[in-house]
Amino acid sequence: MTPAPADTPATVDLLRMPTSGPGDLAPLEALRAFGHSPTDVLAVVGKTEGNGCVNDFSRTLATVRWEPVLPSDTITVFSGGTEGVLSPHVNLIVADPRPRPGHDRGLVAAAGRTRDLAPDEVGREPQLAAVRDVVTELTKRLGLAPEEVDMVLVKCPLLTSDRIAACRATGSEPVTDDTYESMARSRAAAALGVALALGECSEDQALAALADRDTTQVWSSRASASAGAELTDCHVLVLGTSRHASSPLRAVHGTMRDAIDLASLRTLFDRIAAEGGELVQVFAKAEADPYGLVRGQRHTMLTDSDLHSTRHARAAVGGLLSALAGTTALYVSGGAEHQGPPGGGSVTLVYRVPDA
Amino acid sequence: MTPAPADTPATVDLLRMPTSGPGDLAPLEALRAFGHSPTDVLAVVGKTEGNGCVNDFSRTLATVRWEPVLPSDTITVFSGGTEGVLSPHVNLIVADPRPRPGHDRGLVAAAGRTRDLAPDEVGREPQLAAVRDVVTELTKRLGLAPEEVDMVLVKCPLLTSDRIAACRATGSEPVTDDTYESMARSRAAAALGVALALGECSEDQALAALADRDTTQVWSSRASASAGAELTDCHVLVLGTSRHASSPLRAVHGTMRDAIDLASLRTLFDRIAAEGGELVQVFAKAEADPYGLVRGQRHTMLTDSDLHSTRHARAAVGGLLSALAGTTALYVSGGAEHQGPPGGGSVTLVYRVPDA
Amino acid sequence: MTPAPADTPATVDLLRMPTSGPGDLAPLEALRAFGHSPTDVLAVVGKTEGNGCVNDFSRTLATVRWEPVLPSDTITVFSGGTEGVLSPHVNLIVADPRPRPGHDRGLVAAAGRTRDLAPDEVGREPQLAAVRDVVTELTKRLGLAPEEVDMVLVKCPLLTSDRIAACRATGSEPVTDDTYESMARSRAAAALGVALALGECSEDQALAALADRDTTQVWSSRASASAGAELTDCHVLVLGTSRHASSPLRAVHGTMRDAIDLASLRTLFDRIAAEGGELVQVFAKAEADPYGLVRGQRHTMLTDSDLHSTRHARAAVGGLLSALAGTTALYVSGGAEHQGPPGGGSVTLVYRVPDA
Amino acid sequence: MTPAPADTPATVDLLRMPTSGPGDLAPLEALRAFGHSPTDVLAVVGKTEGNGCVNDFSRTLATVRWEPVLPSDTITVFSGGTEGVLSPHVNLIVADPRPRPGHDRGLVAAAGRTRDLAPDEVGREPQLAAVRDVVTELTKRLGLAPEEVDMVLVKCPLLTSDRIAACRATGSEPVTDDTYESMARSRAAAALGVALALGECSEDQALAALADRDTTQVWSSRASASAGAELTDCHVLVLGTSRHASSPLRAVHGTMRDAIDLASLRTLFDRIAAEGGELVQVFAKAEADPYGLVRGQRHTMLTDSDLHSTRHARAAVGGLLSALAGTTALYVSGGAEHQGPPGGGSVTLVYRVPDA
Repeated sequence: MTPAPADTPATVDLLRMPTSGPGDLAPLEALRAFGHSPTDVLAVVGKTEGNGCVNDFSRTLATVRWEPVLPSDTITVFSGGTEGVLSPHVNLIVADPRPRPGHDRGLVAAAGRTRDLAPDEVGREPQLAAVRDVVTELTKRLGLAPEEVDMVLVKCPLLTSDRIAACRATGSEPVTDDTYESMARSRAAAALGVALALGECSEDQALAALADRDTTQVWSSRASASAGAELTDCHVLVLGTSRHASSPLRAVHGTMRDAIDLASLRTLFDRIAAEGGELVQVFAKAEADPYGLVRGQRHTMLTDSDLHSTRHARAAVGGLLSALAGTTALYVSGGAEHQGPPGGGSVTLVYRVPDA
Repeated sequence: MTPAPADTPATVDLLRMPTSGPGDLAPLEALRAFGHSPTDVLAVVGKTEGNGCVNDFSRTLATVRWEPVLPSDTITVFSGGTEGVLSPHVNLIVADPRPRPGHDRGLVAAAGRTRDLAPDEVGREPQLAAVRDVVTELTKRLGLAPEEVDMVLVKCPLLTSDRIAACRATGSEPVTDDTYESMARSRAAAALGVALALGECSEDQALAALADRDTTQVWSSRASASAGAELTDCHVLVLGTSRHASSPLRAVHGTMRDAIDLASLRTLFDRIAAEGGELVQVFAKAEADPYGLVRGQRHTMLTDSDLHSTRHARAAVGGLLSALAGTTALYVSGGAEHQGPPGGGSVTLVYRVPDA
Repeated sequence: MTPAPADTPATVDLLRMPTSGPGDLAPLEALRAFGHSPTDVLAVVGKTEGNGCVNDFSRTLATVRWEPVLPSDTITVFSGGTEGVLSPHVNLIVADPRPRPGHDRGLVAAAGRTRDLAPDEVGREPQLAAVRDVVTELTKRLGLAPEEVDMVLVKCPLLTSDRIAACRATGSEPVTDDTYESMARSRAAAALGVALALGECSEDQALAALADRDTTQVWSSRASASAGAELTDCHVLVLGTSRHASSPLRAVHGTMRDAIDLASLRTLFDRIAAEGGELVQVFAKAEADPYGLVRGQRHTMLTDSDLHSTRHARAAVGGLLSALAGTTALYVSGGAEHQGPPGGGSVTLVYRVPDA
Repeated sequence: MTPAPADTPATVDLLRMPTSGPGDLAPLEALRAFGHSPTDVLAVVGKTEGNGCVNDFSRTLATVRWEPVLPSDTITVFSGGTEGVLSPHVNLIVADPRPRPGHDRGLVAAAGRTRDLAPDEVGREPQLAAVRDVVTELTKRLGLAPEEVDMVLVKCPLLTSDRIAACRATGSEPVTDDTYESMARSRAAAALGVALALGECSEDQALAALADRDTTQVWSSRASASAGAELTDCHVLVLGTSRHASSPLRAVHGTMRDAIDLASLRTLFDRIAAEGGELVQVFAKAEADPYGLVRGQRHTMLTDSDLHSTRHARAAVGGLLSALAGTTALYVSGGAEHQGPPGGGSVTLVYRVPDA
C-alpha cells in the first residue's frame, strides 16, 4: 500500500442537514453548533428540489448562495431532483482532525476541480482525461489505494443553447445539440474518467465506450456524476475508508444491479449492522434500464415525454432506499451512465460505529 | 357469520399479464390458454401508462378496446400511471368454480356498478351513498362479513371542463372547478362510501369528513379508489377471503402508515411466507403526505408544479413495493384520500398457497 | 402541364368539425348532414389533445375509434397537441364530385400509404424513398405539376422502447435510441421525401441533409409531417389546387420564416381577401428555432426539460394563427424539420370563394 | 385633477435588456452606459425562465442576485415563464429627471411595498386592503387621477407546504391547501385591491368577488399581478402617463377580451402609430378562459394535468404579441384573475414618441 502522504489522514465528518429551500444557509449555523467552522468544509453536497435537468435553477440558486460563504477551494455538488419522498438537504463534508483513537480505520475525503472545459470538450475525451487526473491526484493525496476509494462524486457541466451556439461560433460541433442529452454525455465522460483512475477499466475500453455511446460494458462501481448548468469545470470529491485514519465514520460501497436490487442493498445494510454501526447517509445513482425492462417487465421511463427518465428513476430508487434507511434525506442522483451496471447504479453508505 | 347466499362461494382466479400498450388485448388469448373464457371475467383491473391524471387517454384507450370484448356486466378498472419502475399490465379477475378442495378458505370476488352520477353529484354525498350501497350489496352477495373483505376497488368519475360547464348550465355548482382536484374529491367520496359499507366509520363521521375536506381522521383500510374521465358511474370490485370457499388463492390486507412504511409491509409479506405462500399481486394506494413531511423530513410533492403529487407517490411507493415483490407489474394507484392514514395507504396482497 | 388522368379531377370538400374528445365520432353524423357518406372520406386529419410526443395515446385512441368506421384505404392523420388556445377537431377530406361549375380551379386531394417500415428504416433513406414514391404517385394521379401541390401531409412512425429492442434483436441499430428524438428523425426523412418528390431539392442534397442531421439548408415549403406510435407505415395526403377542377375551394401556401412571421402570414390572408374568399382551415408547422434565437432574442424552448420544444412551438404559433383566423380549431403541428426554413414552417390556407 | 405633489413629476425611463440567465446582472452595466445609476432604479421587472408556478426557483435566483445591488426601496417583480417564443429579459424602471421639454405628457412611476402578509392573510381581505392602500398612496404621490394610471404591477406571495403548515400551527386555516391554487388566490386578492384603489369597483363588489371566487364579474383593466415564493409582502409598481410630466415616453392600456383578441390589440398599436411612436415594451396578462372555451371552441388548458394553464396561456398570448411587436422580449404574465375580462387580460404598451 502506498504510504500515506505527510498531510494525511484527511479525516472527515459528514453532517447531514435539512434545508427549507435551495438557498437556505441555516446549515452553516448548525455547523458551528457541531464545533466546526465554514473554513473546515471540504465540500457541500446537496439535493435541491428542482427537476434535476437542464433548466434546474434550484442548483444555481444553491451555488450562488453557498459559494460566497465558503473558502474558495471548497467544492459544491448540488444535485437537483427530490422526486417522490426524497427530502432536500445538504451534506457537509468537514475536515475533522480531532483525534478519535481506537478505530482501525476511518472516513477520509479530498476535493478538487478540473480546469474549465470548453463546450466542445464536454462529453468527450478531454473531460474524461481531466476528471481522471483529478481523481488520481486526490486519491494519491489521501494515501488511498484505488480499491479503498468508496465513492467519487463529480459535478460536471452540461450544454445549454448558449453554449452550443458559442461552440459552433468557434467552428466546433458539440457532442450533441440536445441539451438534456448533453447531461448524459457529460456524466458518461466523467464516470469513465473515474473508472480509469480507479483501475476499473483500461484506457482503450474507456475511450471505446465513450465513442460508441455504449454504457453497458464498462463502469465504475464508485462513480457518482451529475451534470448542471451552474459550472463549467468539474467538481470532484473522493471519499474512502483509510487504514491510516481512526474515526467512527466509515463507508461501504456496492452496486445495485437494477433499480429494485434489494438483495445487494441488504448486503450493505447488513454489513453495517454486523459492525454495530448506524447509518449516516446513502449516496446512490439511479437510472432507467436502457433496454426498457426491469426484471423482464417493460418500464415506461424512456417513452414518457412529459417526464424525463432521470426523474422517474430518482423517485423509484429513492422510495426504496428511504424505506430501508428509515429517512428520506438521502442523496439519490439520476442518470447512471457507466456508474454501475445498466439499469442499476453505484451505492455508497456512510455509517458510524460506536466509539471504542 | 352471515350464511353465504346460495350462489356463493364466488371463487375467483387472478391472472396478471403484461401488456404491450394500453390497447393490448393479447391477455385475452392468454386467458384462454389458462382454461378460462372471456365470459368468466368479472373484472379487468389494469395499470396503463398515461399520467394517471385528468387527461390520461391511456385509460380511455384501454376501456374502448376491452369493453367490446367483455360481457356487459364485467367491470373495468384502469388506473393510469406507471411511474418509475412500474410496469403496464392487466389483472383479470376470473370466476373459477372448478373445485379446489382441501383449503379452509379462498379468494372470492364480485363486481358491480353504481348508477351514472350527475356532474354535481361527483365528490358529494350522492356518490358516497351510491358506492356504499353497491359495496354493501356485493359484500352480502359474497356472504362476507365486512371484516372479511380484503379490498374494495372503485373506479369513479372526474370532472372535465365539459362536465363542469354542463353542470353550471343546469344551475348547479360542481364540488370544484379544478379538474385535477375533482379526482381527489371523487376518490374521497368513493372511499368514504367504502368505509361506511365496511363499518369503518359512522355516517356522521363520513359526511363530516367529506364536508370538511379532512382526509386525515376517517379512512378505510381496504378502499382503493381511482378516478377517470372514461366513465360516469362507479365501477366496484369487492374482494375477500371467504371461509366458505376452498381455493389456494387468498388475500391479506394492511395499511402503510406512510410512504416508506417497510415494517407494515414486512408483516404482510411475512404472513405469506409463514403460510408457504407465493405472492400473486400487490394492490396498493399511495399519496403525498398532506402535511408536507415524511418521518419529519420535508417532501416536495405538493409544491412541484411540473409533476402532480400522485405521480410522485406512485413512483416512490412503486419502487419500494417492486423491490419487495421482486417484480414491477404491480397495481399501485395514486391519491389515497380516506384510503389509509394520511400519507399512507391501503395495501392488499393476493397470494397462492400450495395445494393441499 | 401533364394532362390530368381520366379519373381526375379528384375534387374534395373539407369539413372541419369540433370533437369532444379524441374518441369522438360525432363528426360522422355531421358528415351525413352535409350530404356526404363515410365512404367518401379520403382522409381524417385531426388534432387531438395529448402531448403530441411519444406517449400520446390520444392519437391512438382516435385511430382505434375512426379506422373501423372508414373504408380501408382512407387514411388517418392525427396530430397530438392542442397547446394554448388550439382546439381539438377533425378535418374530413371528402371526395366531392358534385359539379360546381364556373370556377377556374379547385381543391383536389389524394391519399395513400407507404409499406410498413422496419424500425431500422425509420429516419433513414428507406423511409425517405418510400414517402417520395407515394407523393410522386399521388401527385401524378391528381394530374398536378409539383408546383401546384399546396400541401403534403405525412403521418409517420416513431421508435418506442419496444421497437428499439426489436430492432436490436435483429442485429440492427436504430437511427437513435432516444424515443422523442426518433420523432424528429422520422419527420425529417418524411419531409425530405416530400421535398424530393416536389423537386425542391436534389437527391444528393436530401441524402446529405439526412446524413448530416442538418435541417437548415434543405426544406420543402409544402411538407407537413408528424410522427406517432399508432402506425408503422406512413400515411400521405397530397392536396393541391388544380386548373382541371372547378370548385369554390382553393388553397394557398407559404412559409413562416420564423415563429412570429406576421408579414408572410398577412400576405397569405391578404390573397384570400383579394379573391373575396373565406378561410376554411389553416395547416401550419411550427418549431423552436434550432439556434436558440427568435429575431436575435434568446428563447428557452430547447433548454426546458419539463416541456418539449414541440409543445412550446405549437402553443406560440397557434396563438398567433388563431388570432389571425379568428378561430382556434386550426391544424398546427410541431417539429418542422425540413418543412420550412429553420425556426419557421410551412403554412397552407384552404379557403372558399363565392360561387360564380 | 389633484395637483401634483411637490416631488412630482416622477418621470421615468424604461430600459429593456436581455438576460443570459435568471442571475444575469449584465443589465446593470448597460444601465450605466445609458447614463443611469443603480440608485436611480425604482423597479426591476423581469421575465425569468422558470415554470412560473410554485417551484419556480428562477424567480428566487433573480431576486437573490438583484436585491443586494439595488437600493433597499427598489422593488423587484420577477415573473416566471417564458413559454413559446418569449425571451428572458429585465425592464429597468429608472427615475429620469433630466428635462425633456416639449411633450404634453410623460411616463411616471412609483414603487412601494405592503407589510409582510401572514400565511392566512394571503388571498383574503387583508391582502386586498394592503394592496389597495399602497396603490392609493403611490397614485397620490404621482399626482395621478385613478384614470390616468396605465398599469399597476403587483408581485405577491403564494403558499408553500411550509407556509401552510406554519399557518395551521397557529390554528388558522389557509385560503387553500393547494399550493398552485394559492397563486391564483393571491393574484385575485391583489388585483381586487388594485381595482378598488382605481375606482373600478366598489368595496362590496370586491369583497363579494373574493368570497365567491368569482373572477368573471369584477376586474381591473390595469392590474397585473403575479405570485411567487420569493417574497412575503407585495411589491407594487404604479405606472401612468402624467400631464404634469414632459417626456417622450408614454403608455396606453387596454384589455384583451379573450386570448386571441387581435382587434383590441390593433387599436392599441394603431394609437402608437398615429402618434408616430415606437413601441418600447408590452405588459400583458393572459389566462385560460375559465369556461373552457375560446370563441366558442373548446380549449384544453384546464384539463392538461402535465402543464398548468398559466404556462399554456403565456405561450399562446406571447406568440401573438411577439408577432405584433416584432420582438419576443415581452412581459407576458399568466393568471389574469380580476385582471381583465374572463379569458382575457390587461395590456399596457409603453412607447416613445419622437422628441419635439
